[in-house]
Amino acid sequence: MAPPPHVTQAIEKLKGLLGERLSTNASVLDLHGHDESWHTTVPPHAVCFAHSIEEVSAIASVCNDLQVPIIPFGTGTGMEGHVVAVQGGICIDLSQMNQILELNQDDFDCRVQAGVTKNQLNEYLRNTGLFFSVDPGADASIGGMAATRASGTNTVRYGTMRENVLSLKVVMADGRIIKTAGRARKSAAGYDLTHLFVGSEGTLGIIVEVTVRLHPIPESIAAASVYFDDIESAVAAVQLTMQSNIQMARIELLDSAQMAAINNYSKTDYPVKPTLFVEFHGTKASAQEQATLFGEVSDEYGGGGFAWTANTEERSRMWAARHDAAYAAGAVRPGARAIATDVCVPISRLAECIRATREDAKNRSNLTTMLAGHVGDGNFHFVFLVDRNNPEELAQVKDIYGRLIKRALEMEGTCTGEHGIGIGKQQYLIDEFGVDTIDAMRAIKSALDPKGIMNPGKKLPSDS
Amino acid sequence: MAPPPHVTQAIEKLKGLLGERLSTNASVLDLHGHDESWHTTVPPHAVCFAHSIEEVSAIASVCNDLQVPIIPFGTGTGMEGHVVAVQGGICIDLSQMNQILELNQDDFDCRVQAGVTKNQLNEYLRNTGLFFSVDPGADASIGGMAATRASGTNTVRYGTMRENVLSLKVVMADGRIIKTAGRARKSAAGYDLTHLFVGSEGTLGIIVEVTVRLHPIPESIAAASVYFDDIESAVAAVQLTMQSNIQMARIELLDSAQMAAINNYSKTDYPVKPTLFVEFHGTKASAQEQATLFGEVSDEYGGGGFAWTANTEERSRMWAARHDAAYAAGAVRPGARAIATDVCVPISRLAECIRATREDAKNRSNLTTMLAGHVGDGNFHFVFLVDRNNPEELAQVKDIYGRLIKRALEMEGTCTGEHGIGIGKQQYLIDEFGVDTIDAMRAIKSALDPKGIMNPGKKLPSDS
Repeated sequence: MAPPPHVTQAIEKLKGLLGERLSTNASVLDLHGHDESWHTTVPPHAVCFAHSIEEVSAIASVCNDLQVPIIPFGTGTGMEGHVVAVQGGICIDLSQMNQILELNQDDFDCRVQAGVTKNQLNEYLRNTGLFFSVDPGADASIGGMAATRASGTNTVRYGTMRENVLSLKVVMADGRIIKTAGRARKSAAGYDLTHLFVGSEGTLGIIVEVTVRLHPIPESIAAASVYFDDIESAVAAVQLTMQSNIQMARIELLDSAQMAAINNYSKTDYPVKPTLFVEFHGTKASAQEQATLFGEVSDEYGGGGFAWTANTEERSRMWAARHDAAYAAGAVRPGARAIATDVCVPISRLAECIRATREDAKNRSNLTTMLAGHVGDGNFHFVFLVDRNNPEELAQVKDIYGRLIKRALEMEGTCTGEHGIGIGKQQYLIDEFGVDTIDAMRAIKSALDPKGIMNPGKKLPSDS
Repeated sequence: MAPPPHVTQAIEKLKGLLGERLSTNASVLDLHGHDESWHTTVPPHAVCFAHSIEEVSAIASVCNDLQVPIIPFGTGTGMEGHVVAVQGGICIDLSQMNQILELNQDDFDCRVQAGVTKNQLNEYLRNTGLFFSVDPGADASIGGMAATRASGTNTVRYGTMRENVLSLKVVMADGRIIKTAGRARKSAAGYDLTHLFVGSEGTLGIIVEVTVRLHPIPESIAAASVYFDDIESAVAAVQLTMQSNIQMARIELLDSAQMAAINNYSKTDYPVKPTLFVEFHGTKASAQEQATLFGEVSDEYGGGGFAWTANTEERSRMWAARHDAAYAAGAVRPGARAIATDVCVPISRLAECIRATREDAKNRSNLTTMLAGHVGDGNFHFVFLVDRNNPEELAQVKDIYGRLIKRALEMEGTCTGEHGIGIGKQQYLIDEFGVDTIDAMRAIKSALDPKGIMNPGKKLPSDS
């Protein structure tokens, strides 16, 4: 579709700035108009491949002057349509800003450009004894992970991006460049803009640099899988583990259907039973001690077939299988899309939430479902495999998903543990926070982006 | 001083609402016009003792309508003049809102009214196996601690209020009541208002309820003091301890002068040498293991006289002495005020920062100084004992303190690790963040408090 005149004007100006690094090629636009979710593609009018903060700032100035939407883009691996260009405009692709700028090994921190991916950073850190802990399934960019407040399997021990971003450099809607914090471990100075931008989904500014915390690679890492007769027992074991304050580095739940999908996709041969993948970090003695404590809890609920990974390679294979769980789910029903729910509830309500959700899904649909979850955090993904062209199936998912979110909110949980709001969950935000809280969020949005050009149509529900 | 007409009008309206719980008694006003810092008292025009969120909301509405300043007040134990009524107005004393509302033992969280103090909460938790970790020197209110992003000796392991507030209920300037989050351990839903209000110093709204994280009391707690020949060795031991990833629960530095002051004030008989107070939490085996590792590091720097506390009582005495260090310092020079600096720097720069600061103070003044610090965080308090009526002494402190902050900022640290900005440090904020970042903070302030009634004259530098 031809862009409206003010967008055309912006594109002309930006061509002067970027030359070949501005693209209006249809397939490039298409690639930037969707992520890994089920949301429908809407391409932007142009894609700018930025190489510097100054360029991002100049692009923002042009767009702000002409009131043209800006959509920041990392790797396109989001889960709620954050990059879908619902109002068209200019996509800023930050993937070529992928330099690691400064490693402070003695302070356990590292400053990177927004386009650096998590695997790239960990590869870079390989011989330092440090690692970056946040590990969503995809090899996402660290800027995108900050923008969506991403987490993953290590969160139960090391936290989400909320706990692992020390400071940000952000280009504001009008092109101004701000730094949100220094490198001290704590500060009581200004307002906490770092946390305001973490999870803001590109609606308040463009994250261009991230200073992340690193963690020392533990002396000892022990990982195992353990299966249970039924999912209730597996979840009960998780609840007791967390409530006993056993120091888990990872504790991931996968139901039988998900295990079958994993075996098929990742060529593994795990028993097709509700399974926990677990990991312990520490000194040799302390990791061993925690593993023993976990074993006792697991025994209480009939956990069986404890299979310890013997070496780094086996362990990597297990976690790679876990990280590919969403892709494995998608492969079960060819042509179908996987729609993954993402609620997170207080640990004490986890078993009840999972039980009620499984029953509800069984009672209200015939869809294939599976479950995988960062259960140590109270976060799980209940996945539906859906024919997107079948309105009845979509309606069923919508119904069950809506009821699941209502259930999670009644339990004082959240509609999204880690995927974010994007275009998929705006309608639940008022239920979660209340209209006055959303108004406060809107006031902040208007204050920092008065013309409403930053990733419009995302995150906050429209106030009409 | 008689209040201006619009304030008188507000007071009349509020009397109708609160009756005897609104006071204009001079000594009550005076008590509410200062904290524990050296800043000069400025009393508010009236003090309201609120009993409910609805009352706080009603007070805010009245003040907002008439454009009267509001100053939230907890225990008055702040360190940067946060409650000093620089523009007069209405102080809302929240100390009578001191109910513990909901304990979720299985989720390690607890919801309290803002006036509950840290000791009150820990007393309440005594038989639950859980504790609230954040421990500033004073028995501060949890609302006030959230507002100032407080921390303390446990921060190196358990974090500051930033890490320990799960959710807030806040009365906005116009009286609206918002809730910032649910109780899930993580969420990628709305903007992170929780963290925006933590550390906002009463300038964005009135914190009326706080849901805090609790931590399980470890199976084993081992504490010790160890002294060094010189402060350089003590600091070097701290740096190596942190960089070796030894799991300290507490690691506090006190210089010789501070140890002498403590012995005198707390009737202890520690060697008058640079000393570390340390503590280890864990299972019996893991606490022992960490203590051994620390012992090895300490040995390397000539740490001597390792004195383990034999029981809970001895341990409590040691930490009580530590918590009273500021009062102990103040008692050294009768009639003098203690002015405590509060910078925080990356761990790798700590030794250099402390060394340069001690030298600078020696070269540029004859003042009595001492040092106490949460050194595991890179945070330390360099304390001057000053005759407030002596302009020369005040000028010396101002000079040395300004140079210390400049030094800390050059090291990518912060001008305040835990005391906040209040009225004492606004002039350093632009140096720390840059003018564009401060402008973004101002935009947020204006958006949430358009009439500028929330604790005016605090936190952000005026933009004139």
